[in-house]
Amino acid sequence: MTTTVRAWAAPDAGAPLEPITIERRDLRPDDIRIDIRAAGICHSDIHTVRGEWGAQTYPIAPGHEIAGIVTEVGSAVTKFKVGDRAGVGCMVDSCGECESCAEGEEQYCTNGVVWTYASRYPDGEITQGGYSQQIVVTERFALSIPESIPFENAAPLLCAGITTYSPLEHWGVGPGSKVAVVGMGGLGHMGVQIANALGAEVTVLSQSDRKADDSKRFGAVAHRATADRAVFRELRESFDFILNTVSAGIDLGDYLGLLRRDGVMVNVGMPTEPLPVVLPTLIGRRRSLSGSNIGGIAQTQRMLDFCAEHGIAAEVEVIGAEKINEAYDRVVNSDVRYRFVIDTATL
Amino acid sequence: MTTTVRAWAAPDAGAPLEPITIERRDLRPDDIRIDIRAAGICHSDIHTVRGEWGAQTYPIAPGHEIAGIVTEVGSAVTKFKVGDRAGVGCMVDSCGECESCAEGEEQYCTNGVVWTYASRYPDGEITQGGYSQQIVVTERFALSIPESIPFENAAPLLCAGITTYSPLEHWGVGPGSKVAVVGMGGLGHMGVQIANALGAEVTVLSQSDRKADDSKRFGAVAHRATADRAVFRELRESFDFILNTVSAGIDLGDYLGLLRRDGVMVNVGMPTEPLPVVLPTLIGRRRSLSGSNIGGIAQTQRMLDFCAEHGIAAEVEVIGAEKINEAYDRVVNSDVRYRFVIDTATL
Repeated sequence: MTTTVRAWAAPDAGAPLEPITIERRDLRPDDIRIDIRAAGICHSDIHTVRGEWGAQTYPIAPGHEIAGIVTEVGSAVTKFKVGDRAGVGCMVDSCGECESCAEGEEQYCTNGVVWTYASRYPDGEITQGGYSQQIVVTERFALSIPESIPFENAAPLLCAGITTYSPLEHWGVGPGSKVAVVGMGGLGHMGVQIANALGAEVTVLSQSDRKADDSKRFGAVAHRATADRAVFRELRESFDFILNTVSAGIDLGDYLGLLRRDGVMVNVGMPTEPLPVVLPTLIGRRRSLSGSNIGGIAQTQRMLDFCAEHGIAAEVEVIGAEKINEAYDRVVNSDVRYRFVIDTATL
Repeated sequence: MTTTVRAWAAPDAGAPLEPITIERRDLRPDDIRIDIRAAGICHSDIHTVRGEWGAQTYPIAPGHEIAGIVTEVGSAVTKFKVGDRAGVGCMVDSCGECESCAEGEEQYCTNGVVWTYASRYPDGEITQGGYSQQIVVTERFALSIPESIPFENAAPLLCAGITTYSPLEHWGVGPGSKVAVVGMGGLGHMGVQIANALGAEVTVLSQSDRKADDSKRFGAVAHRATADRAVFRELRESFDFILNTVSAGIDLGDYLGLLRRDGVMVNVGMPTEPLPVVLPTLIGRRRSLSGSNIGGIAQTQRMLDFCAEHGIAAEVEVIGAEKINEAYDRVVNSDVRYRFVIDTATL
């Protein structure tokens, strides 16, 4: 038995999203059903439905920034009760047995994460995401959303928040750290707020000065426009940590030169083309070029609680479902401050 | 006043090395004079004298793997006395005041290391290296060579030894670490011995099987020939740490794929051409691509003492000075097991 719910989905790689219905499974003992109230639009959604990250099976209802209310719980559920605020991020399951799962790093599960959409459970069920009225998920992959964060501001934390929080925590960014955040979009605006709340001194490196006021408001001490090449000379060897949120290719050498000895540049955007690296740039200051993929479930909960404690969240533009395709074009053009969130009542 | 000593030097970028004389300064209070007994030939010597790493001032007497006996000490010297065994590596001075110097990481001195040859002291004195009868150096940049290691086997430790020891120590390689050493030349054969002595499980990745017996003798559990592409599939996600000692360009993606989650690939070779990196390869397993440049003076002393304690050293082919140019060609062709060392009595 399944429950039929409304959703918006891409019927094919080249086609705009449109309303459809999808099925949600009946609850297993460890499942909860969430009535979705808000669903963020992530650039990954666009890459995926357009087939830019590989061929897909259609239709795809995307969305992995999901916040809502628990409406039903399975017989073995202990973390949630009906009426609780709950969220789902990029993952809905993992093997639970590999080294990464055992260490709470489910996002690196060696046997294969079940992603929230365009992915498959071991039994063959194809996952459908958050642009829908409901989702059913094991409680192990559901998060508690703090009371103080509205659904629309909380939803993007499940991807944009954890993607930036995870490397900042993993590499020990805190008081005394000099951090640069590259790119001031959905990810970047969370990275600035989180790094600042962790006690770091944050500089935003953005293409232009357009968002300089917002950078300061989010806690950055400086906002520099990288269109001015002088920036790369003036800020040479200034940072301990660079969080690169840009998903287009950039000149890595420019940015690696901004790192001090033992500095780390962590990439969370996903440019698919190879980017050239000059190894002596790493060798000369023992720099590291790294990458990080979202975060584990326990860490995601820590991130949500941290954001609530520090009064930070995503700054969003709430839209009705009929605006999804227009929003996609605006995301591609970096024309959003700073995340579109779908009011799922309009689906 | 200066002392004139015999040396071998390159008179110009395209020319073979030939005998010359060079001047060594009179001792300052903190200087020692070392009668050089053995000088290793490092691939860097060749790159430098041939102008492959930038234009140089000639003549250049190269050599930064220097071992000998102290014959004179300045009035303020405390670490050495006449008759002591002493060595000099890649550096002969640094500013002593920057953050890196204060932390014992003189090799990353922000005000500029004075390298052992083809470099300049702040007073303008051009440095000349170890292919000579003597060197005068501040005791702060001289190392004590353990009694148990013959001069010819000790000399290469000052560059090949510390270049491989430093990243292994810095990244905490030890019991339980699965390490791959890429390249079995002067650096690689030290990396294998040191990583093994640190307690790691070591695999050598070499172009062919020619040196497989040596790899095992140096402590590796496996030697794999990378000419067989199947190696990159079979060893996928096998290593915590890859030490890349190859100074030619390699396919970084092949090797990054061999790293487990949170694995680090540290490059100590110096390919000058940009190498392509696919960022999702880093992101998908939170891998790091890093580099490391020799090591600090205190760390170099730890390395020498560690090698003595574990009974390891460089395996060398001792040559007379008249064979230097022939040796250079053989180094370029990877035809040496594993380091040429000049018997400086023949200069």
